[in-house]
Amino acid sequence: VTFQHIVKSYDEDLRYLHDQILSMGQLVIDQLEKSITCVVRLDKELANSVIQNDLQVDRLEHDLEAFAVRMIALRQPVASDLRHVIAALKISSHLERIADYGANTARRGLSLAAVGVPIVGASGLPRMSAVAQSMLHDILHAYAARDDAQAIAVWQRDVELDEMYMSYLREILTYMMEDQRNISSCTQLLFIAKNIERMGDHVTNIAAMVHYLISGSLFDKPRPKGMHTTAGKEIP
Amino acid sequence: VTFQHIVKSYDEDLRYLHDQILSMGQLVIDQLEKSITCVVRLDKELANSVIQNDLQVDRLEHDLEAFAVRMIALRQPVASDLRHVIAALKISSHLERIADYGANTARRGLSLAAVGVPIVGASGLPRMSAVAQSMLHDILHAYAARDDAQAIAVWQRDVELDEMYMSYLREILTYMMEDQRNISSCTQLLFIAKNIERMGDHVTNIAAMVHYLISGSLFDKPRPKGMHTTAGKEIP
Repeated sequence: VTFQHIVKSYDEDLRYLHDQILSMGQLVIDQLEKSITCVVRLDKELANSVIQNDLQVDRLEHDLEAFAVRMIALRQPVASDLRHVIAALKISSHLERIADYGANTARRGLSLAAVGVPIVGASGLPRMSAVAQSMLHDILHAYAARDDAQAIAVWQRDVELDEMYMSYLREILTYMMEDQRNISSCTQLLFIAKNIERMGDHVTNIAAMVHYLISGSLFDKPRPKGMHTTAGKEIP
Repeated sequence: VTFQHIVKSYDEDLRYLHDQILSMGQLVIDQLEKSITCVVRLDKELANSVIQNDLQVDRLEHDLEAFAVRMIALRQPVASDLRHVIAALKISSHLERIADYGANTARRGLSLAAVGVPIVGASGLPRMSAVAQSMLHDILHAYAARDDAQAIAVWQRDVELDEMYMSYLREILTYMMEDQRNISSCTQLLFIAKNIERMGDHVTNIAAMVHYLISGSLFDKPRPKGMHTTAGKEIP
């Protein structure tokens, strides 16, 4: 791993971590938006660019991780500085997973585009994705501003996304039952909706890390998340 | 967080991390096996115990994470000791995610059991889950024995699981198309199969961390994983 960034001081190292998380986060939001657009518009070119850009996200995570571990070894941070480094490690890993779900969605977009017929039910995706993007946007703001109240608010907001996900799934299942020619494409939509729901889980995890970064304490209660509350119940 | 373990020496701290990863891993393997059994047998009692035990996995991760961060602050480990601590942090987080997928599967088992009719296609799940369990078993062995060759072998084995997943999905889609009464239950099976495929991805990530722990270097090439290779292509 090479560092284009030349290390000058401890504070600059911390600032570098901070900035890298924010620019990685911005790239991930951008990827999410494009991944849904390419499914709705069946845009192969856009899908391919999302898949290509995912490599850049992977690289950012890889560099950030190497930088953080090196910082721990060389600077031996303690207290809030250590939390800063640990949080950056964890947050970058969640951002990478979110981007992975975006690339996965783009791949499904490619498959749907190959069939080439309009997809019944795809129009419900952007609304759901907008919630995930807005949660991610807000948690990046909470991180940048060290705003604990906003972090807690994002952490609680996953419930909204779960409810949208559950009603969307029921809608898609009716299309599948109405006409078996919808089954293949609607199965792709089920997985895409699941991707968005999982993104929400990861944003919730980031919110927990931002809370930890600011307050020094981890949430004790389990996250109010989809995996625990909706699993199995979303399908009638 | 309280530590029942009384810290005596640096080496004992490292040994504690090591042992906790292994016992957490063993619990997770056990959870996986049970989660699939409860789906195949429609066993509500077993499903509820899997869901209950998931809290224990969450607690283990929480404690391990707090212990590792505290070790970094107090012991300021460097070189291979630091890798040991970082690897424990990362591996425990992947183990927790794998267990989450197991609990999610158990919740789907509860839903399927509530309907109460035999599930067409469920018999293909144990074979797929056995591969995920065996990968997890092998990577825990590689971790315990610091066996880099075995870690690399597990890392490459995800392809096998992906292939099983793809052919299983095609099978399930045919049941959905043959009889629309299968659509609800088969959708649950699709998500359960996806859970197993994702577990394989997390085991692959653990393999990358074990390799890092032993060799000090991260894999440069992307993991040979389902998300990148199968996404969108598994559905005809």
